[in-house]
Amino acid sequence: MSRVLVTGATGFIGLPVVRALASRGEEIHALHTRPSPQHVPGVRWHRVNLLEEAGLEHLMSSITPERLVHLAWFTERGRVMHAPQNIVWVECSLRLMRSFVRHGGRRMLMLGSGAEYDWSNVEEPLYEFRSLLAPATLYGAAKDALRRLASAYARQAEIELAWGRPFFLYGPYEAPGRLVPSVICSILLNESVAISSGRQVRDYMYVEDLAAAIAALLDSSVVGAVNLASGVGVTLDSMVDQIVRLSGRPDLVLRGGLPDRPWEPPMLVADVSRLRDEVGFQPRWPLAAGLAATVQWWEAQTSRSGEDALEDSANQR
Amino acid sequence: MSRVLVTGATGFIGLPVVRALASRGEEIHALHTRPSPQHVPGVRWHRVNLLEEAGLEHLMSSITPERLVHLAWFTERGRVMHAPQNIVWVECSLRLMRSFVRHGGRRMLMLGSGAEYDWSNVEEPLYEFRSLLAPATLYGAAKDALRRLASAYARQAEIELAWGRPFFLYGPYEAPGRLVPSVICSILLNESVAISSGRQVRDYMYVEDLAAAIAALLDSSVVGAVNLASGVGVTLDSMVDQIVRLSGRPDLVLRGGLPDRPWEPPMLVADVSRLRDEVGFQPRWPLAAGLAATVQWWEAQTSRSGEDALEDSANQR
Repeated sequence: MSRVLVTGATGFIGLPVVRALASRGEEIHALHTRPSPQHVPGVRWHRVNLLEEAGLEHLMSSITPERLVHLAWFTERGRVMHAPQNIVWVECSLRLMRSFVRHGGRRMLMLGSGAEYDWSNVEEPLYEFRSLLAPATLYGAAKDALRRLASAYARQAEIELAWGRPFFLYGPYEAPGRLVPSVICSILLNESVAISSGRQVRDYMYVEDLAAAIAALLDSSVVGAVNLASGVGVTLDSMVDQIVRLSGRPDLVLRGGLPDRPWEPPMLVADVSRLRDEVGFQPRWPLAAGLAATVQWWEAQTSRSGEDALEDSANQR
Repeated sequence: MSRVLVTGATGFIGLPVVRALASRGEEIHALHTRPSPQHVPGVRWHRVNLLEEAGLEHLMSSITPERLVHLAWFTERGRVMHAPQNIVWVECSLRLMRSFVRHGGRRMLMLGSGAEYDWSNVEEPLYEFRSLLAPATLYGAAKDALRRLASAYARQAEIELAWGRPFFLYGPYEAPGRLVPSVICSILLNESVAISSGRQVRDYMYVEDLAAAIAALLDSSVVGAVNLASGVGVTLDSMVDQIVRLSGRPDLVLRGGLPDRPWEPPMLVADVSRLRDEVGFQPRWPLAAGLAATVQWWEAQTSRSGEDALEDSANQR
């Protein structure tokens, strides 16, 4: 057993990660900024704002974690790709990393993104050892630069860095307004949903699978970049179809009701051979099962809190 | 005339840059950390530690510079290439850049390094648009990552970023212990100097030429990376020869007295077509003239302060 520090631990990705790690008897120290995080057996919560150096340094010196899972990032919907806060989070991540190393840390897992790759001309699954890195957004550039810095620093400090690259995700607690929650919520509200042609092929992973993949990557000794994805391409059209079939209201979907965005690549799928062969991880949730669980979760939200939550999601898209 | 903020303004590079800019009637605000910077007509000095956020923010809001020349970096001799302070200086440079943009800045010139390039297999002059970037040191990785971040941020913020890449430098005030000062000082002290085979070819620029190149790049509208170098390769052997001839003591040089370092590439020379054709800059100091001026400067140091300064330099190599 070793002490693991997890940042961003209350998020869409963070909470499943904390649960996955805690279920294996690790000593988990999880950071949160808002009051009253969810109770998870075996997890010690610490209220620390990563953007404030003093609090972080105090925490690190009292915990002296051996392993770090850094998930926290700026996540304000609609602004993630281009906001200057991406730069702030690079600064904050570098401070975190230095503090971790100064207090004896040995292995870091940081979260990058499929957006680090060059999306301008994707012709095959994106592969860690071959595909070009040429991020088109400030978010992608920030993750790419942080990876370069963290790798060079880890080499110098003689610690391990694993760099996970999630692709497209879905599951409970996903931010309202994103594709999957907005389709589900519109249908649950009996409202029609306009979508684009839906021909784009994407690599979607259920968030519980991502959490398990992060836990497996942390426990392995694999270093460097690892795609955290399903390796399976699905058209957005087929995603929406499956949601509609689960809810029995195909009439509510207006295909072609939104224009295709010309800058969106036709295909974004990960090569997952590193994750499968080196980390030894296989996803457990087929798309149908993950979508069914997600629809059920939203249905439970409605019965609990009325239609407000659904309206939030349907409208914010 | 526009307000220019210069960081690292008291350094080996910084002071000539400040002089070059001031001589053209710019409104120069120069930062220093140690007491009593040298008087330069037209320059307003501000004592600010860039590593402290509050002071920087206050300064930026009171000056609101239109242009920024960011030269400051960690420079502790012998530790520059690998020290974790390189990460601290990335953080600090990102804060500086954000503060500059927040207060209306329009054009930034930052200093990178020839060490951003892949040095493992150099077969031709290193060229901004063709040569691979694969820094081998933490210093190179830090500069490379900062450039990527600053470029993406500048694009997003719609300001200009020029990224100067100096190669090898020499001139007055160079840090004691580096090749040129240590050879000069040993000879002035009548001590022998051991050097390696000296067959390595390097691109050396006189620091006054670098300062003029930085001023020219700042005044141009060129953006992106620009090699700031002479474009002329010289063997270290021939450099030492020229110094020896200036001082008349060839007997003091022990050629081959130091081993070649296997990781040092045989040739590091810059392609300077961007600097020459786009910036419109040509160096004014041939190597012989620059070395003569440097030897004279060291001779003046001796007559002023005795042999202590020379011994410092000769011994610290």
